[in-house]
Amino acid sequence: MKTMEIANKLVELCREGKDEEAQRLFYAEDAVSVEAGAPPGKDPEMKGLGAIREKREWWYANHEVLQVTVTGPWPHGDRFILGFKIDVTPKASGQRFQMEEMALYTIRSGKIVREEFFYHMGG
Amino acid sequence: MKTMEIANKLVELCREGKDEEAQRLFYAEDAVSVEAGAPPGKDPEMKGLGAIREKREWWYANHEVLQVTVTGPWPHGDRFILGFKIDVTPKASGQRFQMEEMALYTIRSGKIVREEFFYHMGG
Repeated sequence: MKTMEIANKLVELCREGKDEEAQRLFYAEDAVSVEAGAPPGKDPEMKGLGAIREKREWWYANHEVLQVTVTGPWPHGDRFILGFKIDVTPKASGQRFQMEEMALYTIRSGKIVREEFFYHMGG
Repeated sequence: MKTMEIANKLVELCREGKDEEAQRLFYAEDAVSVEAGAPPGKDPEMKGLGAIREKREWWYANHEVLQVTVTGPWPHGDRFILGFKIDVTPKASGQRFQMEEMALYTIRSGKIVREEFFYHMGG
């Protein structure tokens, strides 16, 4: 699929909360996912679809996601940016908060090979 | 300056319409600026601060910019994203329109060395 087809489908699936399906359909097996930051001792970079799936599972196991608003896509060649506004309560703290991040996706051979999340770290 | 200092100053100057000053202060002499697209026969990539300045001058000579709204920054390592909503009337057509784009900036040695604009091409 072309970059804009993937971008539009990804927006659609993320809006429907079907990000697991999106990973299965659009991510390369060797895709890399990079956070803007990570807790001390943790790696901000996940390599491979297996590790990306585990990160997703960890996120949903530890957070109650109340709402996700997706904006974009904004394309540029074989990349595009999506915006995510997330209203979430971490199960450990119970303290609901809202965050906004931008995600930069890179496509190769019709698959997402890299996703990079841009956001402020706490503090 | 550090990435977030540059990002915050850039937002401030762009909000004040002082993007010429921002270029002078924060851009490396060999900075590269890449548009998502270009008219037939034109290059989407401008190399060097001189060419970037000329692009800026062309833009203001040919457009009446009614409003610019800047969002962000969203940082990730030595890069950050800003959002621009632009309300503009091209002088040639007189047809006012609104556009939204994301800009991805890369910092090296305390200067912006690359800016890339993400947006839909017309049609």
